[in-house]
Amino acid sequence: MFLIWSLVSSKTLSQRWFSSATTPQVLRTGDVLRQSRLFTEEDVIQYSKVSHDSNPLHTNPTAARDVGFEGPLVHGMLIASLFPCIISSYFPGAVYVSQSLNFKFPVHIGDHITGEVQATNLKENKNRYLAKFKTRCLMNGELLVIEGEATSMSTTLTFEQKQCKEH
Amino acid sequence: MFLIWSLVSSKTLSQRWFSSATTPQVLRTGDVLRQSRLFTEEDVIQYSKVSHDSNPLHTNPTAARDVGFEGPLVHGMLIASLFPCIISSYFPGAVYVSQSLNFKFPVHIGDHITGEVQATNLKENKNRYLAKFKTRCLMNGELLVIEGEATSMSTTLTFEQKQCKEH
Repeated sequence: MFLIWSLVSSKTLSQRWFSSATTPQVLRTGDVLRQSRLFTEEDVIQYSKVSHDSNPLHTNPTAARDVGFEGPLVHGMLIASLFPCIISSYFPGAVYVSQSLNFKFPVHIGDHITGEVQATNLKENKNRYLAKFKTRCLMNGELLVIEGEATSMSTTLTFEQKQCKEH
Repeated sequence: MFLIWSLVSSKTLSQRWFSSATTPQVLRTGDVLRQSRLFTEEDVIQYSKVSHDSNPLHTNPTAARDVGFEGPLVHGMLIASLFPCIISSYFPGAVYVSQSLNFKFPVHIGDHITGEVQATNLKENKNRYLAKFKTRCLMNGELLVIEGEATSMSTTLTFEQKQCKEH
């Protein structure tokens, strides 16, 4: 069940956007699922607690400024949690197989972030669907702050609605 | 500051282990930093809240068993948070540059997980150190459940002690 098949990205992708999808749809190559969120100081505190990550960059304004940032940063892995959140909100029960992450620009508390996953390859095997996605986070709708790829496995490619909360 | 240099992994790596390091050391290629943790149901609940990830695999025993698991799974991204946690506990203020993750086996609530980061390439540029790590999570000290690579940037390679909590 955890074997990762070799996937080949599609060439030119048509885009369908489903940020407000409420009727049944079947995921197709090129489709984009998205979710926006603003990470608060409370989010960062709660994430520090559950991850045990005590990096002062996230909680100490002085420490953050000492290394050149405007203020405390949101944990990269918390921002990246948008990707499995989006995928599982459309496909409850989906199993996360892989994720690559390149953190390109810092995200400060209060920044408005949109996560996007775009289906690049869909493969069916014995009623299991392996989906490969291009994954990106944009700040204020334009600055690319995280990019990478994800793969998930689910029992269907049909989805009805997203369930993640939006801020 | 967020430019990722091209890094080449070292060939044969000697290993030093620092899970209980308390005296000043300088990180060298081949060194392994590690941290163990047991993820509880409360951890999973708190992570679901902060990540907004409502995948029933993590909170609903029936949903988890329906797709072949023994019970609710720990979120892969929560387990993977061990990597930046380990790095920043040795190098407070370190900036996370990249992470790749392959989730190879499921981790259930209560499983004992050890995270390891092994330095594979260290590069200095203008008093900033770019460190590339091989990253692994092992269940019960032997089963490889997550593997990948990480890159971080810090102002020093000298460390004194880890700060992450252990269970």
